[in-house]
Amino acid sequence: MKKAELLMIPGPTPLPEAVREVLSRPAIGHRSAEFKEVLKRVFPNLRWIFQCKNQVFLYTASGTGAMEAALCNTVNPGERILVLINGVFSQRWAEIAKTLGITVESLDVQPGEAHTPELLREYLQANQSAHYKAIMLTHSETSTGVLNPIRELTAVCRESHPDALIIADTITSLGAADFNLDEWDVDIAVSGSQKGFMLPPGLSFLALSDRAWQAHQQCKHPGYYFNFTRYQKSQLENTTPYTPATPQISALDVALQLMTEEGLENIVQRHSQLRDMTRAGLKAMGLTLFVAQDQFASPSVTSFLPPEGTTVDTVRANLKKRFGIVIADGQKELKGRIMRIGHLGHVSQRDVLTTLSALEAVLRDMGAHVPAGAGVAAAIQVQQEAVAIHA
Amino acid sequence: MKKAELLMIPGPTPLPEAVREVLSRPAIGHRSAEFKEVLKRVFPNLRWIFQCKNQVFLYTASGTGAMEAALCNTVNPGERILVLINGVFSQRWAEIAKTLGITVESLDVQPGEAHTPELLREYLQANQSAHYKAIMLTHSETSTGVLNPIRELTAVCRESHPDALIIADTITSLGAADFNLDEWDVDIAVSGSQKGFMLPPGLSFLALSDRAWQAHQQCKHPGYYFNFTRYQKSQLENTTPYTPATPQISALDVALQLMTEEGLENIVQRHSQLRDMTRAGLKAMGLTLFVAQDQFASPSVTSFLPPEGTTVDTVRANLKKRFGIVIADGQKELKGRIMRIGHLGHVSQRDVLTTLSALEAVLRDMGAHVPAGAGVAAAIQVQQEAVAIHA
Repeated sequence: MKKAELLMIPGPTPLPEAVREVLSRPAIGHRSAEFKEVLKRVFPNLRWIFQCKNQVFLYTASGTGAMEAALCNTVNPGERILVLINGVFSQRWAEIAKTLGITVESLDVQPGEAHTPELLREYLQANQSAHYKAIMLTHSETSTGVLNPIRELTAVCRESHPDALIIADTITSLGAADFNLDEWDVDIAVSGSQKGFMLPPGLSFLALSDRAWQAHQQCKHPGYYFNFTRYQKSQLENTTPYTPATPQISALDVALQLMTEEGLENIVQRHSQLRDMTRAGLKAMGLTLFVAQDQFASPSVTSFLPPEGTTVDTVRANLKKRFGIVIADGQKELKGRIMRIGHLGHVSQRDVLTTLSALEAVLRDMGAHVPAGAGVAAAIQVQQEAVAIHA
Repeated sequence: MKKAELLMIPGPTPLPEAVREVLSRPAIGHRSAEFKEVLKRVFPNLRWIFQCKNQVFLYTASGTGAMEAALCNTVNPGERILVLINGVFSQRWAEIAKTLGITVESLDVQPGEAHTPELLREYLQANQSAHYKAIMLTHSETSTGVLNPIRELTAVCRESHPDALIIADTITSLGAADFNLDEWDVDIAVSGSQKGFMLPPGLSFLALSDRAWQAHQQCKHPGYYFNFTRYQKSQLENTTPYTPATPQISALDVALQLMTEEGLENIVQRHSQLRDMTRAGLKAMGLTLFVAQDQFASPSVTSFLPPEGTTVDTVRANLKKRFGIVIADGQKELKGRIMRIGHLGHVSQRDVLTTLSALEAVLRDMGAHVPAGAGVAAAIQVQQEAVAIHA
């Protein structure tokens, strides 16, 4: 007997039944009146998720495609950007920019630690005269589970470098953490379908401010496939410039409906609880969290170290083999050093309790010193306290 | 009572049941051992479809994305290319190239007519000294239904410009018309999932020669998302550089299995028959085919003009309303002037007979002069003759 796997990785997220049903529907013409109706519902709902007034562009590409779109549409080769790095995905901003011939300056903190407003202010004041066309932020650093405080970081950027574009990777934060493009004065944010949107991979999203649109007008090499102008023109007619991934878009329509029913505040609260339960459970099991400070812990993904006598590979393999639960390895230099539990998208408290209890069984089997029942008990307590607060 | 629509457009193609079933499966991790097994089967099968020895790159993007990839990975800004234009999609090569800062020279023939080896030879001999980094061809011009003879055109290019890269759009020809990248000496061919592959949109494919790979090594701005080097490196490990559209790739695995079972020769023969049946039927109904010469008619799509007393809009609307059959309008300057019947991918002889008979009903209802039963009779005769030949 084999049950479907429980995906507890930071994307792809498990899929709601309603999403799976839509994915298997017969083919639909992407220029049909019916599909225009789908897009007509999707576009305003995307603006709602990003909390922005301008159009949100819908790319058939991974989040990395939208990251390249953000840069190639607004920053010219030879111009300088500042990248705040503390993990694999913030590092990706720098890699993309270099490939595009953009001059990259980076401010680095250790993976597992967050970029703080204090450190950034100090750095920017010391580089007051530097002309940054853009400053690149990462909201939830998926490779570690750090939530960088990008609202405060953006405010700090505006103090000394008010004209710099603030470009944020919100790939694993959107639909999980609080975010407001317009109010926070962020210029571009990108996200991907297989995260908070509860969809399979295949789509990415890009929201932008007027300031970003103006930068695009000055851009010399905006490319073709990701070109802002083409997407904006098509959206006015409720279509896309090129043939889009229709199954994911029809499913997005359904997922956005589910999200509006749940409400943004509730979505954010659900993810915070999943994080708090996960962290409390892991701590109570005596495990070491890779992101030490609670205030900088991502609501989407939690990393921890394998306890004495175990390895990342064996813990993951046993979780999968014995319980059909998939959690993620670390990436690059953190491969084999940390494990990551994703609690993002179509994930419930039940899934967290399931994962913690299975993890306990696996670790105890491997001879690790884990107090019986402590992980689940701590998670339940967090959940009960949250209920009491909101009652 | 409403039955599912019959899509007779040149992509998206209808989906086989087995493909729809796979699309609705629970989410799968894109770095999992199971998904690596999927890619391990998919990659060699893609080489088989393109008939090439080198790796075929798998992009999560539309065919247009793969077209941009072909150019940005091999041609530098300021270099010159020649584009053979006779419709909207061949024109797109020129548009993409201009956006990338490439110098574009074009050889134009009228939409509905094909590029012939004779005309191309004459042109290239008159421009013997021109240094073309690449010559851009379009196999099946989807906007009109012309099949350009790219095997012969490539041979002509090699006579006078042996070092030029031959880059071909095979988006609606692959898995429908005969094609052989290595044998025909084509350098790059691109295609899309929603065509001969019988899948929904979301993926595109790029096959390349050693000559194209060498050009990539000299390329100054290959970009990031479409960068050949990153895809090649990942493929060696049976993975993709960025999160791919997993549902479409799992479905591709199934579709390629169906295609290998049918066999390339049979697939090509099936599409030829669908084309021949469609053309014979339309002619017998007294309709004017937009591509006059049989030898240049695409096996994927057939265009015709609305008869006296009808319009493209009304014929299409009635076909959809009365019979749930969707055929395509013309594009750009041919919008409202021609209609296009797609017979590509998961389409059978039954679908062609259905479409011809419904078209007859609609046209007669509208008062057009169409001999009763003639369209279907002619199509059946073509099919019977083909059976006799192959018996």
